[in-house]
Amino acid sequence: MPAEAPIYDRVALIGLGLIAGSMSLAMRRGRLAGEIVGTARSAETRDIAREIGLVDRVVDTAAEAVVDADLVVLAVPVGAMAAVAEEIAPHLKPGATVTDVGSVKRAVIDAVGPHIPEGVHFIPAHPLAGTEHSGPRSGFATLFDNRWCLIVPVEGSDRDAVARLEAMWQGLGAHTDEMDADHHDLVLAVTSHTPHLIAYTMVGVADDLRRVTDSEVIKYSAAGFRDFTRIAASDPTMWRDVFLTNKDATLEILGRFTEELFALQRAIRTGDGEQLFDYFTHTRAIRRGIIEAGQDTDAPDFGRVKPE
Amino acid sequence: MPAEAPIYDRVALIGLGLIAGSMSLAMRRGRLAGEIVGTARSAETRDIAREIGLVDRVVDTAAEAVVDADLVVLAVPVGAMAAVAEEIAPHLKPGATVTDVGSVKRAVIDAVGPHIPEGVHFIPAHPLAGTEHSGPRSGFATLFDNRWCLIVPVEGSDRDAVARLEAMWQGLGAHTDEMDADHHDLVLAVTSHTPHLIAYTMVGVADDLRRVTDSEVIKYSAAGFRDFTRIAASDPTMWRDVFLTNKDATLEILGRFTEELFALQRAIRTGDGEQLFDYFTHTRAIRRGIIEAGQDTDAPDFGRVKPE
Ligand SMILES: NC(=O)c1ccc[n+]([C@@H]2O[C@H](COP(=O)([O-])OP(=O)(O)OC[C@H]3O[C@@H](n4cnc5c(N)ncnc54)[C@H](OP(=O)(O)O)[C@@H]3O)[C@@H](O)[C@H]2O)c1
Ligand SMILES: NC(=O)c1ccc[n+]([C@@H]2O[C@H](COP(=O)([O-])OP(=O)(O)OC[C@H]3O[C@@H](n4cnc5c(N)ncnc54)[C@H](OP(=O)(O)O)[C@@H]3O)[C@@H](O)[C@H]2O)c1
Repeated sequence: MPAEAPIYDRVALIGLGLIAGSMSLAMRRGRLAGEIVGTARSAETRDIAREIGLVDRVVDTAAEAVVDADLVVLAVPVGAMAAVAEEIAPHLKPGATVTDVGSVKRAVIDAVGPHIPEGVHFIPAHPLAGTEHSGPRSGFATLFDNRWCLIVPVEGSDRDAVARLEAMWQGLGAHTDEMDADHHDLVLAVTSHTPHLIAYTMVGVADDLRRVTDSEVIKYSAAGFRDFTRIAASDPTMWRDVFLTNKDATLEILGRFTEELFALQRAIRTGDGEQLFDYFTHTRAIRRGIIEAGQDTDAPDFGRVKPE
Repeated sequence: MPAEAPIYDRVALIGLGLIAGSMSLAMRRGRLAGEIVGTARSAETRDIAREIGLVDRVVDTAAEAVVDADLVVLAVPVGAMAAVAEEIAPHLKPGATVTDVGSVKRAVIDAVGPHIPEGVHFIPAHPLAGTEHSGPRSGFATLFDNRWCLIVPVEGSDRDAVARLEAMWQGLGAHTDEMDADHHDLVLAVTSHTPHLIAYTMVGVADDLRRVTDSEVIKYSAAGFRDFTRIAASDPTMWRDVFLTNKDATLEILGRFTEELFALQRAIRTGDGEQLFDYFTHTRAIRRGIIEAGQDTDAPDFGRVKPE
């Protein structure tokens, strides 16, 4: 869906990893931006970005990157957002939109919001797409195709600026929905954050168990385990920040999870087959409901997308 | 790899669900059996099997099915194996091989072994392949292609009979390995049984949480959750039996799992980013090791296979 004119004349990407890189490639595909300027923390990443032409222009600092930008995208780990916001604040163009792609929203709003000057629109967002890879070489243009991007407007967000950002995400290939920050954090704790923690844990357990070798674990994982290891390969910094900043919702879901797990564990220990059967019958019905509602495809990809 | 002559003249399939049905279709593909006779508990399943021609001949009882069979495959839930073994025992042909496809091995050996008459070979096996579907219409010929089938010979198993069964499984498309029953049960507790229990639990939690709707959970599960619901749709009887019969290994792995999960939960609660970062870095290294060892492909399929 190539736009007739670019949606933003100049876009600044702060951070040049999986998400920012994929945005740049998808923006080019859709001709959504007049010019794409990018920067990253390390000289190494900036050099790679220059070498592979990931963006139109690589600059050395975030302050420089945002000059004259109509859209500024914060694509760094959640815990790094506040410092970046503080750095760029004095250089933002009046009327510009600042957005982010962080996996947690309340914490980003609290960290970034106070730095945004009057006359600049701050509209948080979160594209629900990723892979276990990271860094400047990991992006690809189709990452967001047919995925959701949740837009999380804050108190007083300008409707025109929100509509423009949604048009951008649709141009990147995504479907968009608006959601409140706290609800976003709870939904993601259920659908992504807690499952990731569980997968990390299960991989750690397997590795600890010296009586079963890693190679056996992988070779014979007909069901269940391989995707856990894939998840557990995701970027440690990103996930550390997710759990530290979506602490309350994650702890709530974890609490419920261990409660139910203990009930099942007890049923196993006492040999209560009826309870197990009933529980599994119930969850099967949930899955049926999902399929009847047409909300799943047959592709078991653990939410991950493959380049091409 | 079509055999020159059938590996077994007559094969009896006891149970006509996903595994038996797939075996029948794959045996035909490879011309591995002279005649395939099958039976199931319910008249309904037997009728469907007749209607779709799932096997060459459908009979009404297991006792009838095994008459003159060179290979008898027990393809019923693990908890149903003992009764089936007792029923067929007097009708087994001397020199025949009895095998099973149960997901747990020690319990099957204990339940079936005592019923096997002198002169009949009992060689347990477990194909590491499945989908979340079950019943006589769920099988397909390619289910076992490039999957592992673990052969678990018991004390005194005849080597020729073992070799012949391995040739059968290779003809069905699988790679074969031999493994001791207790080790099998521990490895599977790590790679399959505990991950399945965790997935069931996570789906139950999401459904309990009234503040997040099922449709949100699915719609927005960019990572982690969809495959959990797929797993949680697996057959309740089969999984009840797995947990009841692989109790010790599952409880051991669950114990370790909750121990580690609590350590991570505590790190989240206390804001110990360093511990989280180190844990995630460690599990990432495990995944790297796996990829370097060439033991994973890029297909994130949660161990499941799709028909065609
Ligand atoms: N990966 C996913 O699955 C996914 C999905 C949706 C949303 N997100 C969110 O998207 C954001 C970026 O993730 P990503 O996957 O693109 O990560 P990534 O590939 O690791 O890239 C992160 C970028 O941020 C920079 N950075 C890291 N720490 C920084 C710091 N302290 N200060 C300034 N810059 C820093 C890095 O610079 P250097 O390269 O120079 O270190 C790199 O350019 C995160 O907030 C994450 O929560 C990720
Ligand atoms: N599904 C997997 O992912 C998978 C993978 C590897 C191994 N296995 C093992 O393979 C075996 C069969 O599983 P499946 O997936 O093929 O199951 P399935 O599709 O549900 O079929 C089970 C068959 O067993 C029969 N059966 C059920 N309860 C019985 C009982 N009490 N007495 C006699 N027959 C009974 C059923 O007959 P009716 O249709 O008449 O009820 C049906 O024909 C199980 O031991 C399982 O552990 C399964």
